[in-house]
Amino acid sequence: MSMNPIKTIEWVADRKGHLLPGYIRLVDQTRLPGKLVFLEIRKLPPLWRAIKNLQVRGAPAIGIAAALGVAAAVQNSRAATGAALAAQAERAADYLATSRPTAVNLFWALTRMRRCARAGQRLVPSELKMRLLREALAILNEDIAMCRAIGRHGARLLKNGQTVLTHCNAGGLATSQFGTALAPVYLAREQGKRLKVYADETRPLLQGARLTAWELMRAGIEVTLICDNMAAQVMKERRIDLVMVGADRIAANGDSANKIGTYGLAMLAKAHRIPFYVLAPSSTFDLKLATGAAIPIEERGADEITQGFGKRTAPENVKVYAPAFDVTPARLITAIICERGILKPPFGRAIKMALAN
Amino acid sequence: MSMNPIKTIEWVADRKGHLLPGYIRLVDQTRLPGKLVFLEIRKLPPLWRAIKNLQVRGAPAIGIAAALGVAAAVQNSRAATGAALAAQAERAADYLATSRPTAVNLFWALTRMRRCARAGQRLVPSELKMRLLREALAILNEDIAMCRAIGRHGARLLKNGQTVLTHCNAGGLATSQFGTALAPVYLAREQGKRLKVYADETRPLLQGARLTAWELMRAGIEVTLICDNMAAQVMKERRIDLVMVGADRIAANGDSANKIGTYGLAMLAKAHRIPFYVLAPSSTFDLKLATGAAIPIEERGADEITQGFGKRTAPENVKVYAPAFDVTPARLITAIICERGILKPPFGRAIKMALAN
Repeated sequence: MSMNPIKTIEWVADRKGHLLPGYIRLVDQTRLPGKLVFLEIRKLPPLWRAIKNLQVRGAPAIGIAAALGVAAAVQNSRAATGAALAAQAERAADYLATSRPTAVNLFWALTRMRRCARAGQRLVPSELKMRLLREALAILNEDIAMCRAIGRHGARLLKNGQTVLTHCNAGGLATSQFGTALAPVYLAREQGKRLKVYADETRPLLQGARLTAWELMRAGIEVTLICDNMAAQVMKERRIDLVMVGADRIAANGDSANKIGTYGLAMLAKAHRIPFYVLAPSSTFDLKLATGAAIPIEERGADEITQGFGKRTAPENVKVYAPAFDVTPARLITAIICERGILKPPFGRAIKMALAN
Repeated sequence: MSMNPIKTIEWVADRKGHLLPGYIRLVDQTRLPGKLVFLEIRKLPPLWRAIKNLQVRGAPAIGIAAALGVAAAVQNSRAATGAALAAQAERAADYLATSRPTAVNLFWALTRMRRCARAGQRLVPSELKMRLLREALAILNEDIAMCRAIGRHGARLLKNGQTVLTHCNAGGLATSQFGTALAPVYLAREQGKRLKVYADETRPLLQGARLTAWELMRAGIEVTLICDNMAAQVMKERRIDLVMVGADRIAANGDSANKIGTYGLAMLAKAHRIPFYVLAPSSTFDLKLATGAAIPIEERGADEITQGFGKRTAPENVKVYAPAFDVTPARLITAIICERGILKPPFGRAIKMALAN
């Protein structure tokens, strides 16, 4: 029996054998790593706040939460007609869309829910309620299948006893359960391989220390935490066999945007002849962008660096530069793994073929 | 008029025109960057505590503080003979040696003070008191001269308008005043050049954020704080003209040990074709070590990483790897600057010649 990673988000039925009524069960990520607290959400406002306040984070997880949120919002509606219920569902979707204004997966999931509502206007309300929940659960299950597929492909790259270095959190906590960059580690373990992970703490927000280390420990996988600036030394000491990271956006030529620090890590991996893999769903490919040069780099506030943990650690009014992402050029990437397979250079062709399938 | 960096440590005479009695004036570095607090120390126990508790830190600064501490310890002695006073001074030195058991400069400075005491046993006590203070002030002044010499040599590498990236704090706060890695910036400014600095925050202990950013701001030099993992991106954006770092120990072939993260930074500089300079006093060369492979890497406690910000930021009992230093191989170093000049590769020969002068 394998120890699966924690379910970040799921739908729990109140009565056995009936999906409705029920509630959304979320890991409150703002309480990690100190405490594992589950939120039980049955209504719209607390879900909006959970997304807004980063209690649920990670693009796929946010999308799933929002879809389930639409279903939860109307589950106790007394609407007399399907059309009235559909209108309520659309309003719920509009409201949730205001929670994190830049989250692509959020809008994508809400669009699917709106379409489902409109298509079911002629149904009786109880049937439409169930149709909406099933659509949200489909989004959840597709995410699980996507993560497991990335994991299966990626696990082929992992040999028993190897050690993976990862950056930030592209783990189960960012998705429904298995994550992207960490999925191969979980799947390889299911296959009986023993693997170790080094996790960069990932300044400024320490997702590696707070989330990646936590979810791997909880799943019984050996993880060692390091500061970002220790990665080169750890590579030099031959502690790392390969690097696996996620991606936020991948250009047509394979240039990959991810959390700040990824680009430097890729350079260090290259210099130490360590394979460097990017793992992400195929929805991350953005063929409108010819190269990574077209990817805008978001800048974050100074406070995350100067007083990230409730305590001032830099002088008042110090000038800060805080790019939130960087772009790793395709030439530093050994392979890109998506749910459709392992893509190898030249990436331009491989990405086009993968998306065409 | 130039704005000099702050005097980290000095001797202040109580009465004008007389060096004795007086006190040691120290910047309390544990209060930075929040508050600039000076300690006024006239006796042995508070000086011992100041060293122990890192209120004064940085190898050269610790050595100077200890030497002045021996002079301060005996300044009000009622010893009847020079021999009795010398014995008191030696006991003071023995006591101070227990404050930071691994600080090489501390032992070196105390050995000089003991020698001075023994050589002055025949003097009347008041003369020996003055002799001891002058020896301590000589150590202080030699440090200032050494830092200024490193600064002068290093400043030749800096052109008006350029930007320097530095790591950790090898600035004025680690020495009497001008520092090593930062000395060229201060000296170039005296020469009328305008320079900018990017400072890595330097996890886990954040010396870059807390100390380097503070001392440069206070001296009126434009400084921008970044997280360690942003250095590669900052280089890619061509914001950096050269890198200047300190060193704790340099092997006969030029391999240089310094704060963790320096090695990775050197690799990134190389990959971006940015010159990488190591600046340190010639006392840092250790010819007994053929290469950096012989330099032991100290490992630090997990707490600095898991709760470095006064708050737990990683799971309880998470495994941590925390090398405190790394070794930058000579091939990644453009030049080593010591008080005797700019040493260029091949370093083996250049170091030998510099020490022979």
